Amino acid sequence: MQLSKMNKAELEKFKEDVIREYEAFKARGLKLDMSRGKPSAEQLDLSMPMLDVLNSTSSPLAKDGTDCRNYGLVDGLPEAKEFFGKMLGVSPKETIVYGNSSLNLMYDTVVRAMLYGVPGGEKPWSKEEKIKFLAPSPGYDRHFGICESLGIELITVPMLDDGPDMDMVEKLVSSDSLIKGIWCVPMYSNPEGITYSDEVVKRFANLSPAAKDFRIFWDNAYCIHHLKDTPDTLLNILDECKKAGKPNMVYIFGSTSKITFAGAGVAVMGASEENINHIKKIMSMQTIGHDKMNQLRHLKFFGTYENMLEHMKKHRQIIEPKFNKVLEALDKEIAPLGIASWKNPNGGYFISVDTLDGCAKRVVSLCKDAGVVLTGAGATFPYGIDPRDRNIRIAPTYPPLEELELAMQLFCICLKLASAEKLLNQ
Amino acid sequence: MQLSKMNKAELEKFKEDVIREYEAFKARGLKLDMSRGKPSAEQLDLSMPMLDVLNSTSSPLAKDGTDCRNYGLVDGLPEAKEFFGKMLGVSPKETIVYGNSSLNLMYDTVVRAMLYGVPGGEKPWSKEEKIKFLAPSPGYDRHFGICESLGIELITVPMLDDGPDMDMVEKLVSSDSLIKGIWCVPMYSNPEGITYSDEVVKRFANLSPAAKDFRIFWDNAYCIHHLKDTPDTLLNILDECKKAGKPNMVYIFGSTSKITFAGAGVAVMGASEENINHIKKIMSMQTIGHDKMNQLRHLKFFGTYENMLEHMKKHRQIIEPKFNKVLEALDKEIAPLGIASWKNPNGGYFISVDTLDGCAKRVVSLCKDAGVVLTGAGATFPYGIDPRDRNIRIAPTYPPLEELELAMQLFCICLKLASAEKLLNQ
Repeated sequence: MQLSKMNKAELEKFKEDVIREYEAFKARGLKLDMSRGKPSAEQLDLSMPMLDVLNSTSSPLAKDGTDCRNYGLVDGLPEAKEFFGKMLGVSPKETIVYGNSSLNLMYDTVVRAMLYGVPGGEKPWSKEEKIKFLAPSPGYDRHFGICESLGIELITVPMLDDGPDMDMVEKLVSSDSLIKGIWCVPMYSNPEGITYSDEVVKRFANLSPAAKDFRIFWDNAYCIHHLKDTPDTLLNILDECKKAGKPNMVYIFGSTSKITFAGAGVAVMGASEENINHIKKIMSMQTIGHDKMNQLRHLKFFGTYENMLEHMKKHRQIIEPKFNKVLEALDKEIAPLGIASWKNPNGGYFISVDTLDGCAKRVVSLCKDAGVVLTGAGATFPYGIDPRDRNIRIAPTYPPLEELELAMQLFCICLKLASAEKLLNQ
Repeated sequence: MQLSKMNKAELEKFKEDVIREYEAFKARGLKLDMSRGKPSAEQLDLSMPMLDVLNSTSSPLAKDGTDCRNYGLVDGLPEAKEFFGKMLGVSPKETIVYGNSSLNLMYDTVVRAMLYGVPGGEKPWSKEEKIKFLAPSPGYDRHFGICESLGIELITVPMLDDGPDMDMVEKLVSSDSLIKGIWCVPMYSNPEGITYSDEVVKRFANLSPAAKDFRIFWDNAYCIHHLKDTPDTLLNILDECKKAGKPNMVYIFGSTSKITFAGAGVAVMGASEENINHIKKIMSMQTIGHDKMNQLRHLKFFGTYENMLEHMKKHRQIIEPKFNKVLEALDKEIAPLGIASWKNPNGGYFISVDTLDGCAKRVVSLCKDAGVVLTGAGATFPYGIDPRDRNIRIAPTYPPLEELELAMQLFCICLKLASAEKLLNQ
């Protein structure tokens, strides 16, 4: 029976039952962390052989003879640019291979724009009175954190089923020259797991920003992170931007953080040659080069691009059952009650749950009090404020399956309790 | 016979002889690069066993159980902070372990100050009309490059035998609140190889800057890079700053770039806890963490701090003969002519040669035309302009000994030729 159709007495009874279940759970003294989209130890184990491909007897030379142990090559090994450029759908000349963190790469890219400006712009972004970014939400909290940290105002744009609300994006971007950027996770989005439709990608490429130095920050973090036999597909944004005559409008990002090691992977960016050359010139003041040994390690481990795609299937084998466990719990415990909605994503790292309005914080707080830490409610919105207080990001990958099952039992209990409280207080 | 004591005919004869030698050298078609202070392949080979200590069968866990493969620990592994903090003479709480490049760390530290300010300051440095750094010169070109790139004005301060001209430093720093920093390589300085005296370090710690957010950028790049049995010693700047009641005034930097792998080492910074906490907070917006696997690899390779010091003796065995080769050539070919001066450093990576005024560019250009690339003349001064055009930085470490011998023969010939030209044109 749908919770909203219960009368007060039924609701009170429902709540009492749920509280008993909740208290019983609390007594178990759980201590689980589902707050971040971290790969599990089992997933990390998949890449342990990568530690063997470079050893004291192997050659530290790249194909062109570059000694990867020494200084140099600010934009990465040529073969790494080719390999990881392919992952982002760009040519080697349109690629920079960075350090171990795409967040670092994105942060640095915004900082460079703040201090130096970007091609097409008249001055560094920091020289404007105030600048703004669009934040399709729910979205990735660390994207928003970069802007908040740098004093860039965030404007929330709703996420629809096929991407951000493009009517709103087009209207805002074309009318306000202080809007300098937009954050996108275009494939298996964080947290909803949706992939932008071809039409949305084309509308992005055909934006007519008032700011001549506007940039799309295209964080393709989950580009090969499929969970189904018929994965989503994403149109190549740089190709589309070129067709639209605006090759400089997009910066594309990716990494192997959820392919090999989350903390010791390789980050990469793709962009037009003009953008890349502009960044390389500034970067050469920042570093003599990122860790080429780790680039070489990755290349030797995978050998071919196809092998990396095969490797991703092993990740899927580990995490698909976890996603299913979350979905099963929601389908069984929550769906009949009509107190939340969620998507079944074809890839990525999250399941995004929308509770009844005004319940998300309460659910997260109840879970926390019983020993399960979720991503903070509101984290998926700018400034940590979810206007409807309803979005909760579930990150199924890190805990072992049996812990996840327990955590989801608790999550459903908390969701029921918060929903009953909400309906009783209406 | 000193060149300056020759009459015109003698000088002409000298010059003709040297030109013949030069042309003969040119005909050999050399192709050597002595432009950068890079370790040689033989030095890099010393650390190849570091690639074996982490393999598919070894534990990826830090002492506290942290999985180094996963996200986290923005300031580095606890044991890495302890180990590398010791190298800089600071406690673990006063340490941040970074990525693979101390240049990157220094650049980012300046950028953070530009965009966020530092403790003690009223606003971000970029909000000032204009800011300035002191540049003891000759110095490290990439330090100056950071400032030039960010639009920070550089003021040249002469280097004396025991460090920068402290009378001038004190006067400038105390009188101009737009002077926000100074670049120092306090031990085996780049390029002269001198170590700051205790008095100089104490005068640094007791500076009374007009700018409340003034910082000493103390790049202790060569802190354990000794070349003699009786190495230089350097007073601990953070201790001295604490004694002077100004613990926040210094940022200390270092790395293993010239200990393990130049391109795949570990960078580290030391500073007061207040400085460190301020930076950590901002850094947590930039990255979830640097490469902890590489930190663990370094720690397992060395085991103890003492082992790292032993490891440095192996570097010395390789590079000391190269330094000697350079000094022998200068002593034999140049000293009797009185056309240049240089120091015999107790450590570090360079030998700094001062030619007659107005000859450095010509020497570098002559060498280049004959196939030997040196660091550009002027590179050791702000904006690449050596006011007396006399300083040339020789980097002996990279070429094999026999190539270095050849290169030094050529260098001496070019120095003789340029000096003769100069004296004939007076």
